[in-house]
Amino acid sequence: MSRDELAFISWIKKQTKRDKSIMIGIDDDACYVNLGSKKVLFKVDNLVEGVHFTKDIEPEKIGSKAISRVLSDIAAMGSYPRFCLIAINMPLKASFIYAKEIFKGIKKVADQFDVKIVGGETIIHNGPLAISVFIAAVTNGLNPVRRDGAIPDDLVLVTGKLGGSILSKHLDFKPRIKEAIFLNKNFKINSMIDISDGLVLDLSRICNASNVGAIIDEDKIPVSKDAIKLSRRDKIAPMEHALYDGEDYELLFTCNKEIASKILTRSGLAIQIGRITPSKGIFLRLRDGQLKRLKIEGWRYLFKR
Amino acid sequence: MSRDELAFISWIKKQTKRDKSIMIGIDDDACYVNLGSKKVLFKVDNLVEGVHFTKDIEPEKIGSKAISRVLSDIAAMGSYPRFCLIAINMPLKASFIYAKEIFKGIKKVADQFDVKIVGGETIIHNGPLAISVFIAAVTNGLNPVRRDGAIPDDLVLVTGKLGGSILSKHLDFKPRIKEAIFLNKNFKINSMIDISDGLVLDLSRICNASNVGAIIDEDKIPVSKDAIKLSRRDKIAPMEHALYDGEDYELLFTCNKEIASKILTRSGLAIQIGRITPSKGIFLRLRDGQLKRLKIEGWRYLFKR
Repeated sequence: MSRDELAFISWIKKQTKRDKSIMIGIDDDACYVNLGSKKVLFKVDNLVEGVHFTKDIEPEKIGSKAISRVLSDIAAMGSYPRFCLIAINMPLKASFIYAKEIFKGIKKVADQFDVKIVGGETIIHNGPLAISVFIAAVTNGLNPVRRDGAIPDDLVLVTGKLGGSILSKHLDFKPRIKEAIFLNKNFKINSMIDISDGLVLDLSRICNASNVGAIIDEDKIPVSKDAIKLSRRDKIAPMEHALYDGEDYELLFTCNKEIASKILTRSGLAIQIGRITPSKGIFLRLRDGQLKRLKIEGWRYLFKR
Repeated sequence: MSRDELAFISWIKKQTKRDKSIMIGIDDDACYVNLGSKKVLFKVDNLVEGVHFTKDIEPEKIGSKAISRVLSDIAAMGSYPRFCLIAINMPLKASFIYAKEIFKGIKKVADQFDVKIVGGETIIHNGPLAISVFIAAVTNGLNPVRRDGAIPDDLVLVTGKLGGSILSKHLDFKPRIKEAIFLNKNFKINSMIDISDGLVLDLSRICNASNVGAIIDEDKIPVSKDAIKLSRRDKIAPMEHALYDGEDYELLFTCNKEIASKILTRSGLAIQIGRITPSKGIFLRLRDGQLKRLKIEGWRYLFKR
């Protein structure tokens, strides 16, 4: 199945019809649908042992990661998360204490963002731990920020440092809900995504959806300390880690120059790393000015490495 | 973990606070929450290989069961399902064709009930197939039917025959959405649940939530042909199968006598099987008139048997 994953996902997309009640469908970080008189965002995702975390990780961190990842998708829409439902496939051998610690991790993050846990199912099975988290979110009058709104000459911005998340950040990040709502409320953001599968892959998703390309600047990309640390171990350049590692869970977004300059005056909110181009492809502008076409690759998660 | 499952679930319930935005919380078949100006129902559940189905089952039937179970929960609330999101943990060895067949099974049922599939995630992992289905539903002006509204002297009704579902019905049932909406629209139904874990266990859930008991009549309980067939094989009485087997996915509900008599004139809609009592406990009235207290036990699923 492994090699068919993307083919399967694109096949599914073709099976799901457009409908007037669906403003944003299966193509974005979360869907945006009309429930009669109210528009709502939904997102569900699974966190699976051996794929997103290893067995030795503390259960509270597993719980916190399970919900934080989905909150990061809601952040990418610039929306307010409200309710959460959880379904856990618990290994036979797991103890009651272990299960409680997982839930505590979920609850702690939910409380932090005022998300109410309103449903849950636990299934004991002969397999690895898997946690499904579903979140419902609202816009409070804002428009959700889509992936497909990037325009040529938009600047490309990112909310934090990138790369090396496997050393700790993938288990210990704060979903950028606050920053996303601040951006969506105060500025015209043309497109946004969260970096879960790597800068290049997630930027290519914005570009493909928007039918544009991008140039990002080698000397502007914020390389994390952990990317450098990891580089010492694996001899892969820190920049490669920043471009291709996943699970940074930073926001990647585009807006016009005037708006970007206003955002950039807010210290620590975001860094400008590139520009949207009318022609397709993702290019890296090297320090010597040369353009290098980047391979569209991304994070393979623990298990596939 | 196995023996702690119920303790874990009840512990979780204590951790989730009541809030004015939550009309029905984690205690019912689905939650019912206020998203600002709109009230919505949510339900998520996982279908897991080795627990809810065996490896040899056709993938289309697995897909159809995954969504039908959650629709049955929505039916138990007397509500209209609208949107569906799916997260699949796919085994490494699964083929593209296998994955497609699962999706076709989900899609077929979704189409049948006019439910739109608006989100999905696929994760390839080194473990068993697991499918999470999330459904959002609306009431279209009706009140959702809760578990906790049964009143002494209510009659207890069920929408179909019970027992032996493991022979085929657990893979081949139609969620009682149509019947549930018809009941909720036209009659005052005091409490309702779908029978997923067995008549006695699910009736005890209504009774515990409503702080009442029930007497059900041996000569009224509709025993399915498959319960009789299974009895020939395993030498367990057909009535035991009807009382304790799970996955019938019929509606079990209570209402007052006058309403029940109107419902019972509708041929094939429901059968009266008992009565709610002020005193606790579930009793079986035997053919000779004697009352036998029933053990509160239920379905243990394939894996736990």
